[in-house]
Amino acid sequence: MLRELGEDKLINIMQSLIELKYPNADNDVSYVELPNVGLLTLKIDGGSLSRTKTDFMTYYDVGWRMTIGAASDLLVKFAKPIALVTSLTLRGDHTESELEELIKGINDAAKAIGASYIGGDLNEGDDDVLDVALIGIAGKPIGRVPRLGDVLVTIPEFGFTGLIFKLWYSGLLSNYINDSIVVKGIELTRRPKPWIPSGELGNRINCVNASMDSSDGLGRVLYEMGKGVRIRVYSLPVNKDVESTCRRYGLSVEEVVFNGGEEYLPVLAVKPECLDYFKALGFVDFAKVEEGNGVYLDSRELKHRGWVYFTKPNY
Amino acid sequence: MLRELGEDKLINIMQSLIELKYPNADNDVSYVELPNVGLLTLKIDGGSLSRTKTDFMTYYDVGWRMTIGAASDLLVKFAKPIALVTSLTLRGDHTESELEELIKGINDAAKAIGASYIGGDLNEGDDDVLDVALIGIAGKPIGRVPRLGDVLVTIPEFGFTGLIFKLWYSGLLSNYINDSIVVKGIELTRRPKPWIPSGELGNRINCVNASMDSSDGLGRVLYEMGKGVRIRVYSLPVNKDVESTCRRYGLSVEEVVFNGGEEYLPVLAVKPECLDYFKALGFVDFAKVEEGNGVYLDSRELKHRGWVYFTKPNY
Repeated sequence: MLRELGEDKLINIMQSLIELKYPNADNDVSYVELPNVGLLTLKIDGGSLSRTKTDFMTYYDVGWRMTIGAASDLLVKFAKPIALVTSLTLRGDHTESELEELIKGINDAAKAIGASYIGGDLNEGDDDVLDVALIGIAGKPIGRVPRLGDVLVTIPEFGFTGLIFKLWYSGLLSNYINDSIVVKGIELTRRPKPWIPSGELGNRINCVNASMDSSDGLGRVLYEMGKGVRIRVYSLPVNKDVESTCRRYGLSVEEVVFNGGEEYLPVLAVKPECLDYFKALGFVDFAKVEEGNGVYLDSRELKHRGWVYFTKPNY
Repeated sequence: MLRELGEDKLINIMQSLIELKYPNADNDVSYVELPNVGLLTLKIDGGSLSRTKTDFMTYYDVGWRMTIGAASDLLVKFAKPIALVTSLTLRGDHTESELEELIKGINDAAKAIGASYIGGDLNEGDDDVLDVALIGIAGKPIGRVPRLGDVLVTIPEFGFTGLIFKLWYSGLLSNYINDSIVVKGIELTRRPKPWIPSGELGNRINCVNASMDSSDGLGRVLYEMGKGVRIRVYSLPVNKDVESTCRRYGLSVEEVVFNGGEEYLPVLAVKPECLDYFKALGFVDFAKVEEGNGVYLDSRELKHRGWVYFTKPNY
């Protein structure tokens, strides 16, 4: 049965059956070359609302977050989103206003990433499923595997979603809703802000040898990047308020940083000579790329966790 | 509740919340203009396998049919499919070989329409949902509403799926499986052939003022086309073998022609001066476009049936 195989194995099975021109891009985004245009990216992302909608999310939030989730994979590859369409499969017992909220969330997220929401499909089913398909224009294909000597950079805002998921899955979230950092964490989990490589940053695509967004958790990103090289983490790119909140409540900072997910933060493997440039734009460096494989926090090997389907839950 | 509102009302609600640049194209396909490229089409189509997979279909068939279904909307607008991605939400209790069959069906259908299958998403859920997103290049936007004086043309192969669905929903299909026309009908329902406007036909796009494929049934196509003009049908574009089979079994020919669906046959509103050209390529003319609105079979008004979601079943 699929649920015994794990998502990675299933994706390998699927990829072995189709022909990918840019297999290096893996599961993140698909490229297609159009004569006279350059490189078009096509991304589909989505899933079941029964798996993604927590109690504290509205239908607007789900529409927003799943659209940002689809866009995030393009944005982290420095591709410019152009247009999106959605397919909605819904149970028949929803209200009209739930449908409206969902569409408004998608539409507002589309505007936030600079894409036009140009159409879609609507069907009835036994579960609620939203899929977002997005096209964009890319400068070059960017894969997942860094080069030796690269430095990993990101925005040091990790921990919010990890904190919220940790409290949520322990059934403790409601005990903490007067804590302003928890409140901010819930807000960021409901409506993540898209990271957009705009302005000058967009011109630095040649600094970037690999990239992934943190939708499945930073641990998962590093696990994927560390399949062909060794990733040595030397500092945690954690938000400082989250760090002190974790210490106050006796939670593991490492745990919320590596096993969060849905922050949609960019993790870029950049050439060392580009580091100052990224640092000036709010990035921090937190890991280096060495010969070998696997992920190390200083000298200790990190076991992969992160979020995968078709396996036992992580929490 | 959504199931009391009907698909049309729900789609109107959705469209009122987003901004469509080519609203005339309606629900069929979405257009986006790319500088130096022309008109890109983006289509997403899919739905729940619990609604689309009948007993006589394999997972391969479902993958094939749903891919042809997505492509059909592009093809009937004379757009050339380029690449597709899929999103799969599956229950965890499927076998690995069911997943493989599904992917092979999609991949083979992609080849049949000349598109590359370049990636996708896989998630776990409480229902099985397949969504196919497809990009293509279009010559011009083609909408749904014909012009006065146009002639409707199609391939006279209607009736196979209507016959099969009629027998299936009556629980009688197994009584007829020694009938060669029923067998052919099952085959076409499982693995519809894509209609591709290739060769010379592709150059005749300026003959075409409106088009739709028959995925939701010929009755539904004419109902949509007849919203701004009157469609007067003067002959049924039925397959002759199906017609005689219906007569033999006491089934209404009109019913299987108008209320089938999933034939994925093209219905084109063409300028009268182009008619001979289309006839030479296997099309027949079967209706004319007049002032007024609604759909008439000779002088009798046809009530719309066809396949819609979020309403009571038609059968």
